[in-house]
Amino acid sequence: MGNKIWQKKSTENLDHAAIIEKFTVGNDTDFDMLLAEFDVLGSLAHTKMLNSIGLISDEEWIILEKELNTILGEIELGKFQIEEGIEDIHSQIEFMLTQRIGEIGKKIHSGRSRNDQVLTDLKLFLKHELGEVAQLTTNLFEQLIALSDQYKKVLLPGYTHLQIAMPSSFGLWFSAYAEALTDDMEFLVAAYNVTNKNPLGSGAGYGSSFPLNRKMTTELLNFADLNYNVVYAQMTRGKSEKAVAVALSSIAATLSKFSYDVCLYMNQNFGFLSFPDSLTTGSSIMPHKKNPDVFELIRAKCNRIQAIPNELALLTNNLPSGYHRDWQLTKECLFPGIEALKDCLSICQFMLNHIIIKDNILDDEKYKYLFSVENVNQEVLNGMSFREAYKKIGLEIENNTYEPETNLHHTHEGSIGNLCLDEIKSAFYAVRSKVV
Amino acid sequence: MGNKIWQKKSTENLDHAAIIEKFTVGNDTDFDMLLAEFDVLGSLAHTKMLNSIGLISDEEWIILEKELNTILGEIELGKFQIEEGIEDIHSQIEFMLTQRIGEIGKKIHSGRSRNDQVLTDLKLFLKHELGEVAQLTTNLFEQLIALSDQYKKVLLPGYTHLQIAMPSSFGLWFSAYAEALTDDMEFLVAAYNVTNKNPLGSGAGYGSSFPLNRKMTTELLNFADLNYNVVYAQMTRGKSEKAVAVALSSIAATLSKFSYDVCLYMNQNFGFLSFPDSLTTGSSIMPHKKNPDVFELIRAKCNRIQAIPNELALLTNNLPSGYHRDWQLTKECLFPGIEALKDCLSICQFMLNHIIIKDNILDDEKYKYLFSVENVNQEVLNGMSFREAYKKIGLEIENNTYEPETNLHHTHEGSIGNLCLDEIKSAFYAVRSKVV
Amino acid sequence: MGNKIWQKKSTENLDHAAIIEKFTVGNDTDFDMLLAEFDVLGSLAHTKMLNSIGLISDEEWIILEKELNTILGEIELGKFQIEEGIEDIHSQIEFMLTQRIGEIGKKIHSGRSRNDQVLTDLKLFLKHELGEVAQLTTNLFEQLIALSDQYKKVLLPGYTHLQIAMPSSFGLWFSAYAEALTDDMEFLVAAYNVTNKNPLGSGAGYGSSFPLNRKMTTELLNFADLNYNVVYAQMTRGKSEKAVAVALSSIAATLSKFSYDVCLYMNQNFGFLSFPDSLTTGSSIMPHKKNPDVFELIRAKCNRIQAIPNELALLTNNLPSGYHRDWQLTKECLFPGIEALKDCLSICQFMLNHIIIKDNILDDEKYKYLFSVENVNQEVLNGMSFREAYKKIGLEIENNTYEPETNLHHTHEGSIGNLCLDEIKSAFYAVRSKVV
Amino acid sequence: MGNKIWQKKSTENLDHAAIIEKFTVGNDTDFDMLLAEFDVLGSLAHTKMLNSIGLISDEEWIILEKELNTILGEIELGKFQIEEGIEDIHSQIEFMLTQRIGEIGKKIHSGRSRNDQVLTDLKLFLKHELGEVAQLTTNLFEQLIALSDQYKKVLLPGYTHLQIAMPSSFGLWFSAYAEALTDDMEFLVAAYNVTNKNPLGSGAGYGSSFPLNRKMTTELLNFADLNYNVVYAQMTRGKSEKAVAVALSSIAATLSKFSYDVCLYMNQNFGFLSFPDSLTTGSSIMPHKKNPDVFELIRAKCNRIQAIPNELALLTNNLPSGYHRDWQLTKECLFPGIEALKDCLSICQFMLNHIIIKDNILDDEKYKYLFSVENVNQEVLNGMSFREAYKKIGLEIENNTYEPETNLHHTHEGSIGNLCLDEIKSAFYAVRSKVV
Repeated sequence: MGNKIWQKKSTENLDHAAIIEKFTVGNDTDFDMLLAEFDVLGSLAHTKMLNSIGLISDEEWIILEKELNTILGEIELGKFQIEEGIEDIHSQIEFMLTQRIGEIGKKIHSGRSRNDQVLTDLKLFLKHELGEVAQLTTNLFEQLIALSDQYKKVLLPGYTHLQIAMPSSFGLWFSAYAEALTDDMEFLVAAYNVTNKNPLGSGAGYGSSFPLNRKMTTELLNFADLNYNVVYAQMTRGKSEKAVAVALSSIAATLSKFSYDVCLYMNQNFGFLSFPDSLTTGSSIMPHKKNPDVFELIRAKCNRIQAIPNELALLTNNLPSGYHRDWQLTKECLFPGIEALKDCLSICQFMLNHIIIKDNILDDEKYKYLFSVENVNQEVLNGMSFREAYKKIGLEIENNTYEPETNLHHTHEGSIGNLCLDEIKSAFYAVRSKVV
Repeated sequence: MGNKIWQKKSTENLDHAAIIEKFTVGNDTDFDMLLAEFDVLGSLAHTKMLNSIGLISDEEWIILEKELNTILGEIELGKFQIEEGIEDIHSQIEFMLTQRIGEIGKKIHSGRSRNDQVLTDLKLFLKHELGEVAQLTTNLFEQLIALSDQYKKVLLPGYTHLQIAMPSSFGLWFSAYAEALTDDMEFLVAAYNVTNKNPLGSGAGYGSSFPLNRKMTTELLNFADLNYNVVYAQMTRGKSEKAVAVALSSIAATLSKFSYDVCLYMNQNFGFLSFPDSLTTGSSIMPHKKNPDVFELIRAKCNRIQAIPNELALLTNNLPSGYHRDWQLTKECLFPGIEALKDCLSICQFMLNHIIIKDNILDDEKYKYLFSVENVNQEVLNGMSFREAYKKIGLEIENNTYEPETNLHHTHEGSIGNLCLDEIKSAFYAVRSKVV
Repeated sequence: MGNKIWQKKSTENLDHAAIIEKFTVGNDTDFDMLLAEFDVLGSLAHTKMLNSIGLISDEEWIILEKELNTILGEIELGKFQIEEGIEDIHSQIEFMLTQRIGEIGKKIHSGRSRNDQVLTDLKLFLKHELGEVAQLTTNLFEQLIALSDQYKKVLLPGYTHLQIAMPSSFGLWFSAYAEALTDDMEFLVAAYNVTNKNPLGSGAGYGSSFPLNRKMTTELLNFADLNYNVVYAQMTRGKSEKAVAVALSSIAATLSKFSYDVCLYMNQNFGFLSFPDSLTTGSSIMPHKKNPDVFELIRAKCNRIQAIPNELALLTNNLPSGYHRDWQLTKECLFPGIEALKDCLSICQFMLNHIIIKDNILDDEKYKYLFSVENVNQEVLNGMSFREAYKKIGLEIENNTYEPETNLHHTHEGSIGNLCLDEIKSAFYAVRSKVV
Repeated sequence: MGNKIWQKKSTENLDHAAIIEKFTVGNDTDFDMLLAEFDVLGSLAHTKMLNSIGLISDEEWIILEKELNTILGEIELGKFQIEEGIEDIHSQIEFMLTQRIGEIGKKIHSGRSRNDQVLTDLKLFLKHELGEVAQLTTNLFEQLIALSDQYKKVLLPGYTHLQIAMPSSFGLWFSAYAEALTDDMEFLVAAYNVTNKNPLGSGAGYGSSFPLNRKMTTELLNFADLNYNVVYAQMTRGKSEKAVAVALSSIAATLSKFSYDVCLYMNQNFGFLSFPDSLTTGSSIMPHKKNPDVFELIRAKCNRIQAIPNELALLTNNLPSGYHRDWQLTKECLFPGIEALKDCLSICQFMLNHIIIKDNILDDEKYKYLFSVENVNQEVLNGMSFREAYKKIGLEIENNTYEPETNLHHTHEGSIGNLCLDEIKSAFYAVRSKVV
């Protein structure tokens, strides 16, 4: 049975407590481990503030600060764990403190509830993770831009309705996904701003009669601002996680689509690109297979990530204001998704280091109609109205007299001949710089 | 059968065409009507640009501008419709132009595809709608702030786990939802930034051999920037709609939660607030009923809105790059949701104009335990450790000797006694100002 | 303002009522029209039962029956509408009755609430629609089986990981989707059973003090059984709609996947099948295009349908027992989805009437590795272990000495050479027969 | 690096292989452990069949059967694990066999692909789990029926729109949820039927040239029928998991709603029921709290479960026919949900063993209007028309002259006075009996 520090003396059957504990705690402590560092940082700021308002003496503060920093060091060295029977990260740290420095350890909970404590941990953690995601996204962005530049002259069929349509290029294809990440980054910024506010001091959602200095902890914890209203601070539980999930989903949608393209282009009927054998996998029964498992799994993982906002909506929706235990499960919804997206961003970049692009794709006879718009436009530039030119070329195609105009002169912004990579980079960094 | 302007001569059975047309067009023209104004604006910018690069003569441009402005006026006066057999808004306008000014009318399509045309319409429309949603959200925000200030001294039980927990107030409750709208506004800004980029000139997703001046149309249409890469510009179809849906969902989640609270607080077991009879509805069999139908329906509509991002994900996911006809349905997913949210924001504000708040709620005996934390904290301020004080008050409660400490002194930022409404307003307008 | 028959005399501002009415009724009456026929049938059964327990006299019953049948005839002839200001179908019918036969008309509401009335209408309607969907599904099933038989000898490459894998056939491909519909039908049966229970008599969810004979109305309305518990009967609101949505989704997923295959196979890089020009659409700028819009839209519509169960979950979740006005919106979630699926089933069958299958696909050099498993298996049948044979053929492929074994002898159940169409049909009808 | 048994000799950098392996395998082996028993059963049936068609000799079969049974015993004793570097359950078992009985061990893979092998494991596992869920659901059903009978005379306010409406009872409340489980069971049956078909012999989705006897393995594995078409057999991957997820979701929705009611009724403003202290939890700062954490977590877990069908849809949607590696992730979507639902069913039943129901709830003055319909109906039975009676009682309520008619005579099927528990039980077992 757990060592719950606020447990009242119970004359009830211990078996009951064990059954309840098993069901209510579950595997939650696994996720709490990710919060350990941030929990200590929160306690450091909180106790320093309690000292400033006289609820902790200077002597106590010196002892607490020293021991909290010791624990922080242990966490960083991987020497920390939540012991059997301790129900959460907050209890574990308070338990350790009390074992090591006695009654003073209990003072870290004054003027605080587990509710605002876990919220603070969560926001610090999510902010940190959004920073990591932003950096990995930036790395992939740079990789895509570099590939776009490298392969800017290699043509590719462009499809609409999955039908051969007009000429495209690897320059366009790679930087399209780079530019997509720019719009995704807008949602990362939104989520970052949502998490970058201090809930500490909101207690169980109704504040405290202690004269807490919330602006001081805001500064100590490096939050941009406060969640002012204490009732709202509690409401950010679930809402912050959903904000992060939405940001992850936006990037995931881009990665999923890119992976879909890769799997399609690796298909032998397309055959536009490939990867070295060492980066593909074989089949247990077909000796000729070289499968794009990595991109199938990026796609699949990113599609699961896209399901998280809805999962969080189902979990948190239609609950009145005030804390509910239901929030506990937001961690198991969201945390694996963060990890999965970081993995996907990393391995996608790794794979792209080794991508093999096929040359001369458009030489194949079946692609000649790609150029029909070029022919139409040529007629227009020669004075024909667009609708007339369209009919003329259409007739040539029907009568098999069509000759493709393969000499491309695309010069406008963002076209094959004018990729605007510098402009795309500027736009990306203008957004990306808002996440620090 | 439709008057499709790019239709090739067909010797096939007309019935086939009619069957296909009925299935593929469906009720799409209803949604297209919302785009009419923006389609004309797009054509004005596009043709002015075509004139600047010599694809339309000055004389043609004068004629086109005049007639497009005439049509714009007709749209504003409600005198415009998509005729039977015309499949979309673009065809309708081109059809009208050609009827009125002859062959020149056809020139508006030079250097443009329906794909970038509808994208441009969509972005202009969505930008406009986001502006309206931002303003309605601001109105509701102000209403909530005003009510918070008006009722700042009226206490309310605060619940956690839906169990009576600690004292709250209507001041806290109203401004909590106001502050929630601030975080929601972050996503509105993200969506606004995503839609505030010009896709015009991307053609069918692979650009054009015409020397289009995309920066010029960007300025004419008042977009903040371009979707540079033409392949990416096409990818923003579906993605922009999802961005908007995410923004709507965030506000909708706040409204839904607020409505849930209202329905709960109107329940007679709570009885914290009410509305005049004229704003409630009765029952067909129970003569005593006064039902909160408006808030039930705000909740329900907002819960449906929260389903839209997922619906759009299912619609657009796992499709390779390049246009697909599937995108057509994003309109019927999203547009009713925009309208519904605007209705909900308006009626919520209207209802709040008439809200009746109950006084002296906490006088009821069952709420006395609300104050137990106050008692604990009083002991702590008198020198006891928190954990000891907690045990002492807990014992008093068990032994029925507990006397509530009803004299509240909450002074920290965001607490009952210090609502920080000015700070909450500043924070709101700092975000809201980014949507113009 | 509405003609609400249970409206209390109001001295309030009429504008308020109009605002509330507009928001709460919305476009609900459009969907109510679909229930009109079933509402009359429900009233016929209810009043006959009321007559049997003495709450309606024989004379009254004769008048009511006659007039209800008149209205039923008007509905069938399309001469019925919900008038401006009447808020729902039930009020419209009661209003008409009272206008035509006076006070007796009001008696149809005795022992009934709008809650169980709309539930009864809904269940009758949904049962009816499930029957229609079952029949359209059966038609498509038969079409797929016929095509499977017709093209059983035409080979097709089979893919895994979207990589060329092993030989498949159009016989396999068509009947795979036929068999898929069998499993989908299991969910249709489940939904049918859920809707095939009588909620009439449950009132507002708490029954009635009238001595209603619910078994009698169950028989009269041809329900298989009752929703016994009156509280549960009310709970079936939302739950029944979700059950139907789940059934639709299962079929929709199959249609969506099939449409995806069709779009892929119509792509020129695959080129396995096509449709006559009259069943494809062109492009406004590319004169060579023949786009598979119908299948793209089947896919898109079916993907939207797959979003409905989740939308209903978000709408109905986390609401305590008892009626909520939120349920009103289930109609606008579900009803368009039913219509869309019926359209998709019909047009899919229509398109398949015209499908053009390409012959000799596997002659293309790139498909020769399809047969590598055949070679491996041949070695195994000649005595080599599977793992050794796999290595041998793998080495031949690497060394370019591989010769495909194109002589297929697949004989086991469900393989290319033994499609088991009769067994698949038997299995389908064994399930399908449960929906009558 | 992994011990992949079909791995080709690689001269590539081992680091690449390790990176790919880490990403592609992930934590998949954890879920594979749940399939271990069923994988051996599948291999026993497959090899017995191979023996029957001469691909395995009698001597080999004897050795294989003995060793497979040994491994099965080890699995049952918990002595089995997937070793470091072995990528899946199938490889682990083949690896063990080959270590123990040499080359014969490799023969279990003849005529089989990992694709149909994992499908067979999955279907056997899912069938088994559905059986367990059916039994736990039955246990809860019986508990609810027993409580309904025990508390059939204890009245409760019934709410509509969360407003006090009409009298209900604990008898109605408990058995409403019992009856709900009957409709849920319809979807369990559907899922069971979908999983109860044999995919073994479908290979990688295109069958085999070996003369497999699929009917024999169907009988040996106790499947009700075959997935005939081999292409369809592969399509059931993802589809079967979704079928199961839909069935889980239906039960989960019922449990979630029930838990919501419990949390609401435990709230002090309602106060209809409670649990012993040992089954509630306290607060870290509020000494008076007794929180319903177990029911909040049942609700939360069940709300997450309801998100699984949509997650699987996002994962599997818009992929063409044929195996994709994406399917691997269905396990991590679904398996924890099965476990969670089983936990929730068990603990819900456990909690209900200890539920404390409050008596005399309706004595509270605020509930007197509950009886207004009784008064109305009494007037109707005395000859007044319903609409007139409704107005009369409504006027009494407005004028404060209303006297409740508290003498309830509800006699019709499913009402307070006639719960029809036997009929509800019959209906439940008629469905439940279809899952064996």
